[in-house]
Amino acid sequence: MTSVTEIERAAIVATAHALADAAREATLGHFRSDGLLADSKEDGRFDPVTEADRAAEARMREILAERRPDDGILGEEFGAVSGRSGLTWVIDPIDGTRGYLSGTPTWGVLIAVSNADGPVYGLIDQPYIGERFEGGLGRSELSGPQGRRALRTRPARPLGEATLFTTFPEVGSESEGRAFRRVADRVRLTRYGMDCYAYALIAAGQVDLVIEAGLKPYDIQAPIAVIEAAGGRVTDWHGKPVHQGGRVLAAANPEVHEAAMALLNG
Amino acid sequence: MTSVTEIERAAIVATAHALADAAREATLGHFRSDGLLADSKEDGRFDPVTEADRAAEARMREILAERRPDDGILGEEFGAVSGRSGLTWVIDPIDGTRGYLSGTPTWGVLIAVSNADGPVYGLIDQPYIGERFEGGLGRSELSGPQGRRALRTRPARPLGEATLFTTFPEVGSESEGRAFRRVADRVRLTRYGMDCYAYALIAAGQVDLVIEAGLKPYDIQAPIAVIEAAGGRVTDWHGKPVHQGGRVLAAANPEVHEAAMALLNG
Repeated sequence: MTSVTEIERAAIVATAHALADAAREATLGHFRSDGLLADSKEDGRFDPVTEADRAAEARMREILAERRPDDGILGEEFGAVSGRSGLTWVIDPIDGTRGYLSGTPTWGVLIAVSNADGPVYGLIDQPYIGERFEGGLGRSELSGPQGRRALRTRPARPLGEATLFTTFPEVGSESEGRAFRRVADRVRLTRYGMDCYAYALIAAGQVDLVIEAGLKPYDIQAPIAVIEAAGGRVTDWHGKPVHQGGRVLAAANPEVHEAAMALLNG
Repeated sequence: MTSVTEIERAAIVATAHALADAAREATLGHFRSDGLLADSKEDGRFDPVTEADRAAEARMREILAERRPDDGILGEEFGAVSGRSGLTWVIDPIDGTRGYLSGTPTWGVLIAVSNADGPVYGLIDQPYIGERFEGGLGRSELSGPQGRRALRTRPARPLGEATLFTTFPEVGSESEGRAFRRVADRVRLTRYGMDCYAYALIAAGQVDLVIEAGLKPYDIQAPIAVIEAAGGRVTDWHGKPVHQGGRVLAAANPEVHEAAMALLNG
């Protein structure tokens, strides 16, 4: 991203916040809406998640068409649009749809801006709390109910003092679950159910590790940018780039990343 | 509680909110505090949870001594004080200390007012979100980032369409874990890690069931009052009163309560 000027950086960041503002409104409109949350796609009735997801992504695409017509778009709901600038907006209007359906404040709006090598900027927004984590292009910041502060991951500590998150205890396949438990058996505390919010907590210096499997590019690109800007490391389970999705090992620092990776492959 | 006058009810509710306001300030003072969250009781170093817990409970006891000198107190940190009024304040300044330590917005301040038969009023407060759920003495209300609204649990639905929460996948002993999984295997969605926030989500009409084991009286009395005022049912795994703690089955309505209880004991 050496070719990105200061003016261009400011324009990208301002656009990302405009997208997050629009998605916040669209997603909150259906969150915890009475009488709707029981219904699902299978019932053939109104599905509030899909409704909110699509409304948010459609609004975000309108904003991008107006402000960033040369950039590409990869979104969960409406697929890919190729661009001419070399930059792609990778967006997931509601990451953690099960959390959204359950009313938990753990889902989020994920927005990343990527070039051919991966994300250069990312934003994780939790609309109900009103909390926004961002990182990349020289920024690393949280804004929320307690105001603004810099994001910084935790310093290295022994695995036996670390906190590990994942969303589901099963993690993925049986062998993926076994690999996860080799790490879980060694850390001080393992917690579940936080969806994308767990990645935000690494960037905020609260937890040490998130390990998941089966992720899509739009699930992980924003977390990569936010965590790495705050000092952390995010790769696949073999230390390779993971912006195309798959098995994710996100860590607060290189030391805890290395210790967890050894156990995943042990 | 037929002896409680309108004026007395208003005084109890106002005191509960004063306690919650004081606890909100005391707990947020240490939440996500830099550099402290690594330390634990075992290390013999500064422990931010204990610090916040004690500061909040001490402040709450001061308020009770001033406003409700005839009532008893049962608190997590400083034990029991007997009263003369027949009412006891049952308080847990930080329910979900592991969530608190991890930075998740899932812990809460629990406040209940009980007579000999159990809780007559309860309040669940999530300080970071700024969200407060209350129920009993004629009230059933949520106030939070989206304003105020009445609490009402979900109507009955088949277990196969229900959402179930618990905090840890292990739940408790091996046999308690097996009983839990008999229910989990039948519901549509099982989620973890929400601490006391899961009970608030039943009252808010978002989820159908919470099943836990090994709870203390101060962990469950506020959730009982909040959920029952909103239309739900909270008992032990055999349908008996659970305000003294133990194994908890909290349900959005009597039908889903009965269906889950049959599987727990099946």
